[in-house]
Formats: sequence, structure tokens, C-alpha cells
Amino acid sequence: MSNSADRLIYLPLGGAGEIGMNAYVYGYGPQGAERLIVVDLGVTFPDMDGTPGVDLILPDIAWLKERKAQIEGIFITHAHEDHVGAIGHYWEDLGAPVYARPFTAAIARRKLEEHGHPEGVVKVVGSYPEQITCGPLTVSYVPISHSIPESAGLVIDSPDGRVLHTGDFKIDLTPGVGEPFDEDLWQEISRPGIKALVCDSTNVFSPEPGRSEATIREPITELMKEATGMVVATTFASNISRLKTLAIAAQDAGRSVCLLGRAMRRMVETATEVGILTGFPTTVSPEDALNIPRENLMLLVTGSQGERRAASAQLANGNYLGIKLKEGDTFLFSSKTIPGNERGVIRIMNQLSELGVDIVDDSGTKYHVSGHANRPDIVRMHEVTQPQIVVPMHGEHRHLREHVKLANAHGRTGIVAVNGMMIDLSGNAPKVTEYIDTGRTYLDGSTHVGQFDGVIRDRIRMALNGHVIITLIVDENDEPLGEPWVETNGLAEIGNSNAALVEVIEEDLSQFLHRADDKTLADDDKLEKELKTIARRTCQSEIGKKPEVMVIVSRLG
Amino acid sequence: MSNSADRLIYLPLGGAGEIGMNAYVYGYGPQGAERLIVVDLGVTFPDMDGTPGVDLILPDIAWLKERKAQIEGIFITHAHEDHVGAIGHYWEDLGAPVYARPFTAAIARRKLEEHGHPEGVVKVVGSYPEQITCGPLTVSYVPISHSIPESAGLVIDSPDGRVLHTGDFKIDLTPGVGEPFDEDLWQEISRPGIKALVCDSTNVFSPEPGRSEATIREPITELMKEATGMVVATTFASNISRLKTLAIAAQDAGRSVCLLGRAMRRMVETATEVGILTGFPTTVSPEDALNIPRENLMLLVTGSQGERRAASAQLANGNYLGIKLKEGDTFLFSSKTIPGNERGVIRIMNQLSELGVDIVDDSGTKYHVSGHANRPDIVRMHEVTQPQIVVPMHGEHRHLREHVKLANAHGRTGIVAVNGMMIDLSGNAPKVTEYIDTGRTYLDGSTHVGQFDGVIRDRIRMALNGHVIITLIVDENDEPLGEPWVETNGLAEIGNSNAALVEVIEEDLSQFLHRADDKTLADDDKLEKELKTIARRTCQSEIGKKPEVMVIVSRLG
Repeated sequence: MSNSADRLIYLPLGGAGEIGMNAYVYGYGPQGAERLIVVDLGVTFPDMDGTPGVDLILPDIAWLKERKAQIEGIFITHAHEDHVGAIGHYWEDLGAPVYARPFTAAIARRKLEEHGHPEGVVKVVGSYPEQITCGPLTVSYVPISHSIPESAGLVIDSPDGRVLHTGDFKIDLTPGVGEPFDEDLWQEISRPGIKALVCDSTNVFSPEPGRSEATIREPITELMKEATGMVVATTFASNISRLKTLAIAAQDAGRSVCLLGRAMRRMVETATEVGILTGFPTTVSPEDALNIPRENLMLLVTGSQGERRAASAQLANGNYLGIKLKEGDTFLFSSKTIPGNERGVIRIMNQLSELGVDIVDDSGTKYHVSGHANRPDIVRMHEVTQPQIVVPMHGEHRHLREHVKLANAHGRTGIVAVNGMMIDLSGNAPKVTEYIDTGRTYLDGSTHVGQFDGVIRDRIRMALNGHVIITLIVDENDEPLGEPWVETNGLAEIGNSNAALVEVIEEDLSQFLHRADDKTLADDDKLEKELKTIARRTCQSEIGKKPEVMVIVSRLG
Repeated sequence: MSNSADRLIYLPLGGAGEIGMNAYVYGYGPQGAERLIVVDLGVTFPDMDGTPGVDLILPDIAWLKERKAQIEGIFITHAHEDHVGAIGHYWEDLGAPVYARPFTAAIARRKLEEHGHPEGVVKVVGSYPEQITCGPLTVSYVPISHSIPESAGLVIDSPDGRVLHTGDFKIDLTPGVGEPFDEDLWQEISRPGIKALVCDSTNVFSPEPGRSEATIREPITELMKEATGMVVATTFASNISRLKTLAIAAQDAGRSVCLLGRAMRRMVETATEVGILTGFPTTVSPEDALNIPRENLMLLVTGSQGERRAASAQLANGNYLGIKLKEGDTFLFSSKTIPGNERGVIRIMNQLSELGVDIVDDSGTKYHVSGHANRPDIVRMHEVTQPQIVVPMHGEHRHLREHVKLANAHGRTGIVAVNGMMIDLSGNAPKVTEYIDTGRTYLDGSTHVGQFDGVIRDRIRMALNGHVIITLIVDENDEPLGEPWVETNGLAEIGNSNAALVEVIEEDLSQFLHRADDKTLADDDKLEKELKTIARRTCQSEIGKKPEVMVIVSRLG
């Protein structure tokens, strides 16, 4: 029974306004004292453009940490890194039990163990109609097809109505490994009436209906049979169904299968242990692979996104564990390049080309299908579930907005809710009730660095502008002891006047110091500011750049 | 008449093994004393991944500089930056006359003027059958269709036969501005027999025949008419034909045209001055645009590749010269995103989405056509010219290799010649005769920085690892004066031990100095090495990173 003082809220902290680092919060109760559940805790990956040197990007969960006592549970929809990758880093801050289906639970446990957390915090759950009670909310896992097994949507029941959270999904009736999309089940769940459908938006711009995983089996098998040399295939390690398709195709073509890359081996191991992967061909070790004729070998490797240290990059570079590619071999990208990763993938393709390797990629769409619902599939999900409100998630702003427009075009209400927008779903129309400060935190080595605390900004500045370091010793009478000393990093050595840059700067600084008054010399801040200005001005005239400048004044006595 | 001691050579210095910074050399004469011509002198653009802070990337022309006296002429095929962008930077090093057709010459002259070179060095030439004699070589400009007016291929005649250099091209019979592809002309030129066809490879992976510029006029006009708010359109400023299409469509839809962005205004000016652009609608100034109802306005703006400072980025950011976009406006990308630029373009799209602007891009291929020959068009060029040898250019390694395979599949000889491979074309089969050291140089501010001299490597290292600066003063007795002083840049302030990182490092360095022997303290190299090692070890344990470390030891007396 709904108490009018209580409310049902939805708050994305990650994944709404970006593709990556999913983290959604639902809550029910009196304002400010809602009982909360967290859906997914993912990461996203850094790049040189905006986050040089960073290891991982995580959602900022400060809001949740302050409400640790209100959190009833953490629900992981599936085992992709952008949904489960932050669980090890954040579990201690949230403290609640983690719920997941068996395969996802196995992955989540490994992440918790790596951070020294007890594996018992992960509770394996069955699927709908099994329910987990979280205070005023109950949650059920509804199997759904995606590009990793055991993906699930969530049915979240509250006194104010039922919410469906689709998780990542596609409509695939023949996905191979993992459950097919069960329209009857989703219809049954929707029968009581759906308050809000919180729905995957990734492929809202793809106009054609999505294709089943099954459609690529034959082309892949043909490719493996027709290839005359070694075949190397890469895809996301977590795409267990694809791994099986590739491995079975290789087997059918008389090829032994060798897994390269830690993630690839671990995923196959875990999926086999949990029991969702059966009938996978026996694999050979990299050492044994060296003794197999190349026309009888298929390597299944990590690095479909051009990652620099992955097996595909190392093979393209010439050698990985003694295995070398050569003229006549075939390299299959059974994957799509995620926007932003093009440069890395193209680099590998060109290296492979130099080795004489034939490259087959997704450009013909024969060897890869997406794991997300395309535009007509999204419409179908709306039709099956008939929600009162459509709340798009898992998309950049343009995806969320387009998804709302799509819902509107079919006569439905929708709302663009980006990270930090708390939506009150209680009434007849959704409304934004609060804006929460959100953002990202960076895992940098072993520490966490804030998005706005300047550390990464300083790195980017050094990379763009170079670095000048000025050292000056000042004696007990505030007189410079000797001349200032200049070092540079990341700057040309010789400037426009054809002299060493550091010497020109030192000369300009010395001249300034000789004419500087006592007050300036006695004042660290003033002195630093003046030296910095001179160094930047000299660099501008010598090399046309204004570098970052650090001034170190050592005062004796 | 061919002298058997003479030879005909082809040497790409840029553009073969990459898309960008085109620079090709042809020569004829005795080995090592060939008379040379240079075809195109382009640039390519830096990115944060590999060239942070760099302003422009140019081909390394050291080989040419050493042979300045052998250079007979520089031929620019068309006015794209990747073909003409380096002319101002390099002309002095080469010294030879620059030949170009009128529009290209106007652009080249402006670049030379910016570098203080006399504009008279650019010779305006007519097209075939007009010939320029360069020692034993003669050269003719053959008009060809591309995405900028007055593009041309070159007929290069030598005593050892005729070479055709296509330049960038597409087969377009109705290009709007600029000459249509004239198959009869190319056939006529090929009649004497073609030794080698040096041919554009950019779109060798595009399986369908290319479409004409004319095919997008109607869709663009419809879009302009149907849009209810302001329309903003972006494309490459040099695509004069597209600019005209967009402007005429706007005019037909009752919209005034406003050009935003320096490159956009200059290109229209230059094309009009030279006389190749006629019938372009009168434009309004940005100030006047503010007073025009938005449904009667079309902005034609720079920044189709998501460039951060271009007009499109500033409009997406909320305001450019007082013009603000809003709900109901339409933004048309009449352009393709070049691989590697996706992040920038997507950033703009999401900002526009936040403003409520509707985005129309090339995903439906209705509003943009490529300027390069697709696979069937390349085959047609082979068929029209019937060359003895196909030499692919203007492509990454994978494009060049695929182009050779395509030639082979049609029974032709081809050779993959990448930057630095000198090809002897004299005999019946092409052969690699020499490998020249080539590469890139970086324009960085006002200086040139070498690819391998470490400057950019140091910047990347600072960006990835952060920077630690250690200052130590040592007195006349080789004793440390006070404690070492540590500063950091781009690193977390607090490490794992919850103390300030600089203090932990200082403490560890102090401990070392207290126990260090006299020999170490007296030896700068040894001291620096030890301090560096300690600082890196401390950072590894405190923050999990090994930063770049600079040690400055100041010795008194």
C-alpha cells in the first residue's frame, strides 16, 4: 500500500549520458530516507585525450557512500566490465550484499577476492519468479538475450508500482549460449501494468532490426574452411557464444583451437565451471600450437579493440609466445570497433598487412552482430511491456534524447534522465526532483584521483606545453646565490636564436635578478611569479610555446 | 632516347603507408644524379595519442634537401592541406619553382607569403596538353574530379616512358564546381602506353561505385526546406562544390547564408577571386545574422571533424559571436568523420543534443559523398589507362596492399611501395632499388622537432606517469645542505600511507642521504641515479606509479 509521504525514485550515477560505467539507483520511502538498491557498478576506460596515465574510470559514488545505511542490495545485471568492473573497488564503501545470477556471480566474486573482500557477499540468485526483498522493494531477475550469457533485466516492485530495468539487451531468439529472448515472459511480467521501463538505448540509431547470433555461424564456418593458412580470430572475451561459434567452426574446419590472452582463457574457464558453456572443443597450449601445421590451427585471441598489450597487438607486432603470423594467414575481427578505438585497431590492421596477413573485419557485417537492441527492437520492447513512462538509459545524451523522441512518436511518455538527475516516478508523470553532484573518479596506479582536482589537468598541460623547472638559491641576505638553473622536459633544445633554450632562459632570468629590488627578492610568491612570467615569455619568443613552469626557490639560513 | 645508364625512379616520402602528408618524388638520370620533381608537399594533423602539443606533422624531407640542386620543380595536384600544407615550411629548403593550376596556386601563394617567400615562385599552369619541361622530364596537368576544384593528375613523360600520377580523384561526371571526369581525355593520354599508374587507394575497401556530388543536392535542398528552425551545416571548407550546394539549397529554402570560421570565409573568397566559384549567394555577416528569423537562416561553419576551436565546436558549446542554437534547430554534418576524429565529433553531437538541436549526419549517406574513387572506380581507372605497372599511393599499408591485390586479380602487375622505398621503373618489372630513411618532423610552436629526438616521447611520459622534481643543495664539502626538496606535477597529493606524497619521498631521500658515503655524495651522476631510484620506488609503493623524475643537484662553492 502506498503511503503518500513515500516516493519511488530513479537516479542514474553512471551510464546515462555516456556509454560505460553503468550505475543506477532506485529507492522507495520518505524523501531523504528512501531504502535504496544499486543496479550495476561498472567502469569505463581511459584514453590519452582526456585521461592520460589513468588505469580505470569509475563513477563518483559519493552520494551513495553518504547513504550507506540506506542501501539494501547491489544487483548486477550481467558480467560486462561496464556493469560489474567497479564492484571490487567500491564494495567496501557500500557494504550491501551483491546479487547476481551464477555466471555473473562468479565474475563478481573474482573481482571482490582481488580486493580482499569475502566472497560470501555475493549471493547467487535464480531468475523470475524468484524474488529478493529489499525493504519496500522486491527484485526479480528476468533472463534476456545479450552478448554475454545470463544477462538479465530486473523487475523492481514498489508500493508505487512496477519498474522494468531492461539491462543491456537484444531480441535474439537463437543466441547459442545463454537464454533466447522470451517475449511471453516479458509480456507476463508486464501484465500488472508497468510504471516505468528503464531501457537500453545503445543502438537507437540503427534502423534495421537486429540479427541473431545464429546468422553469423555459417559465414564464420565457411571462412575457417576456405582459409589456407592459420586463422586468428578476435572478439570480446566475454562473448561466450561467439567464442563457441568460432571454436566449433574451427573444429569443423579441422583446426585445433588455441586461446591467447588471459581474459580469453579465464572467461572460457569460468563459463565452463559454472556450466553455461558446454561442448567447447579441447584447446591446445601455445607451446603445442607451435607444432601444429598452420592450416590446422585457429587462435582465439584478446584485443579486438586494438589494446596495445593484448594478444592481437603482440601478434601484429611480430611475435607472441613464439607464434608468428605470415603471408597467407587470415585475421578475423569478429567484433565492431567501439568509437574512439579506431586508431588502435587500424594500427594493428596495418601491421598485419605488412606481415602479409589477410584481414577480415565487420565492414560486411557477415562476421559480427551487435549485442544491443536496434531501433525496431526497442519499439518492440515498448510494445511488449506497454510502460506508462519510458526512461532511456545506457546511452550518450544523443541516444537518450532520440529514444525519448522514438517513444513520443509512438504515443508514449518519455524523459531524458542523465547522470545525477533524480527522477520521482511516484505520480502520473515523471519529474526531476533533485540534481545530485556526480562525475567520475580515476583509478591512477593504486590511488583514486578526482575528476576535477587538477592532477590529470596538470598531466595534460605538461603533455601539450612541455615543462620548465627553474631552481634558484637565495642566501640569508635575500641575495641570489649564483645564477638560476633551468631544466626542461618535453621541449626543443634549440630555439629561434640558435642557442640552447635553457641558456637563453637562464640569461633572461639572471638579467632580471640583477635588477630586481630587495622586496621582490624577499618575497617567494612575487619572485616565483616574476621568474615564471619571464620564462614563459622567453619560451614564446624562442620556440613559440608557453610551457608549464615550476619555480623552486631554496632559501639558505 | 633512353640511355641505358639512366633510370626512372619513384620515391614516396609521405602518403604511402598513411593517409596524409603526401610527398612523392620522381626522377630521371644517372643513378644518384637524377633530375628530380616533387609532387605535392602536404601535412598531416597531430593527436593527443602520439603527438601531444604538436601543431603540424610534416614529412621528413632530409633526402630532398641534400639534393636541392637536382630539383627541377614542385608540382601541387590540388589545394588540400595534405597536399599543399607543407609548401610554406619547406620551400626554402627546396628552392625550385612551384607549379599549380590557378586556384591551387592562389592557396599555395598565400602559404608562401605567410612564410615571407616571394609569391613569384608559384607558376600558374594550364592543363594538358600544356607541358612543363623539367630537365629530362616533362609534366602536364590533367583535370580530374575530386572534392576540391581544379584537382589534377599528372602526366610525367621520361625517356623511359610515361607515368600517370592520378592525384586524389573520384569518377564524377557531374561534380558541380570543378571539371567532370573526362574518360576520353584519360584514354587519349594513355594511348601511347603507360609505364606506371601511380594511383589513389583511399577507398579501395568501398565495394560500391562512387556516387556523384549531384546526387546529394536534392536531399540537402529538401532538408533545408523542411527544417523549421535554424539550419547549421558543416563540411570541409575546401569542398567548394559542397559549399555551393549547401548555399544554393539554403537560398531556395528562403534562408540567408552566413559563413562562420576563418577557413570557410577564405575559401569562398579565394574561389570567387580565381573565378571558379560563381553564382554563390550573397552572404550575411554574423552580426546581421542575429537579426534574421532563425527559420530564414543557414550557417555554413567550419569544424566538421570536431576540431575544438572551430565554429561548430563553439556553437555546440553554447555561443559563437552571439549566435546560440536551441530546440528545433538542425545541425547537418555534410561530411564523413575521418577515423581517429570520432571522439571529437561525438562530443559535439552530444552537446548539440543537450541544446535540443536535431542532428543529421552521414550515417544514411544521403547528405555526403566521398571525394575518392571506390573499388570499382579504381578498376575503371586501371582499365582506361591500361598501365604496365600499378603503383598504389595515398593509402595506409592495408590500402596499398589491397590495391595491388585488386590489380593482380585483373591480371596486372602491382607493387606496394611505402614511404622511403625507391622504385626503379625503368625495366620491364618495377624493383625496389634503395631504402631511404624517412619519417616525420613536427612543427611544435615555432620550431621543428624530430620524430625520434625524444621531445614528444618525454611529453607522453610526463602525461602517463606524472613528474617528480627533486632539488638538493650540496655544500663545498660535498655535504647536503638542509634536506632534499620534492615537488610533483600530475600526481596524487596523498598516497597509500595517508601522508603527503612529497613528504614521504623527502623522508626516504633524507634517510638515504644520511647514510650515503662520501663517494656517492661527490658524484653527481651516482647521486642523481640513487635519488631517482628511491623516488620511483617510494611512488610505486605510495601511489602505484613510477613517475618521471628529475634531480637537480646544486653544488655551492
